[in-house]
Amino acid sequence: MINSQKFTTIELKPIGIIHTPYHEPKDIPIQGIFKSDAEGWVELEEKYQPGLKDLDGFSHAILIYYFHRSNKEHLEGKPFLEDKTHGIFAIRSPHRPNHLGLSIVKINKILDNKLYFSEVDMLDGTPLLDIKPYSKYFDCREDVVSGWLEKHFEDGTIPEKTILK
Amino acid sequence: MINSQKFTTIELKPIGIIHTPYHEPKDIPIQGIFKSDAEGWVELEEKYQPGLKDLDGFSHAILIYYFHRSNKEHLEGKPFLEDKTHGIFAIRSPHRPNHLGLSIVKINKILDNKLYFSEVDMLDGTPLLDIKPYSKYFDCREDVVSGWLEKHFEDGTIPEKTILK
Repeated sequence: MINSQKFTTIELKPIGIIHTPYHEPKDIPIQGIFKSDAEGWVELEEKYQPGLKDLDGFSHAILIYYFHRSNKEHLEGKPFLEDKTHGIFAIRSPHRPNHLGLSIVKINKILDNKLYFSEVDMLDGTPLLDIKPYSKYFDCREDVVSGWLEKHFEDGTIPEKTILK
Repeated sequence: MINSQKFTTIELKPIGIIHTPYHEPKDIPIQGIFKSDAEGWVELEEKYQPGLKDLDGFSHAILIYYFHRSNKEHLEGKPFLEDKTHGIFAIRSPHRPNHLGLSIVKINKILDNKLYFSEVDMLDGTPLLDIKPYSKYFDCREDVVSGWLEKHFEDGTIPEKTILK
């Protein structure tokens, strides 16, 4: 049984701000890797700068952030690629419980408290909650089956709807 | 410049509890894939059950959770495999700002509000904050360089220290 005492509120504080070229949700690619020339940067609060030590040895990082522009919480949603709904935990929509976002980005440069990256898919001004190193040993999986996404990618090309014109 | 108005507190509420065989931090493998016979399960709050629809089409999920047993916040740390310290954003230690944890797990079965998985690396009783589908199209990267981790895996074998005896 769920121990209801555990369901207390957890308070988080942004550790920085994500700056990107995207000012409105409609401008954003579905996933950053499909528009890899866009660039963004993280402005970390200065007190956290020592935490970046040795991250420059990694090619990619995982950013966890807060979907600050979403004020809706749905349990099902219709992704861009689909005409039917799926459960919110089977899609990456911002309108989810807790509004947590996750992106894998390519690290271009780290300078003082700034991390410059490409493979951008978040809104300008997004509050950043964590940075983790992306590891091929922990984070890449073989024999992955990707549910409703499979049919959109099955011929090996990127679906047109994921590319911004 | 950082807009300090954005640095307000964000309140999250656990959406469920993660049950695992690990009751103490010392029992946990460094990453779940290195001890893949262990099993865990997510007990989702019943009201969120519709959000699981179609997640069973995916082989893997990303769990984002709260490191509830960590009451320390460090900016540098020494990972199990290393004798020297790295920035907290270059390691996966729980003693990080905001104490957010992330694991990729293998979905075995979804029954009602319960998700059974292997590749477990979290403590029993961990508060769950989000579930996302793991997609080979968004979440696997090629040409990944993994910083200080590389030297421990360079001969293609799993380092002894990551395997629980």
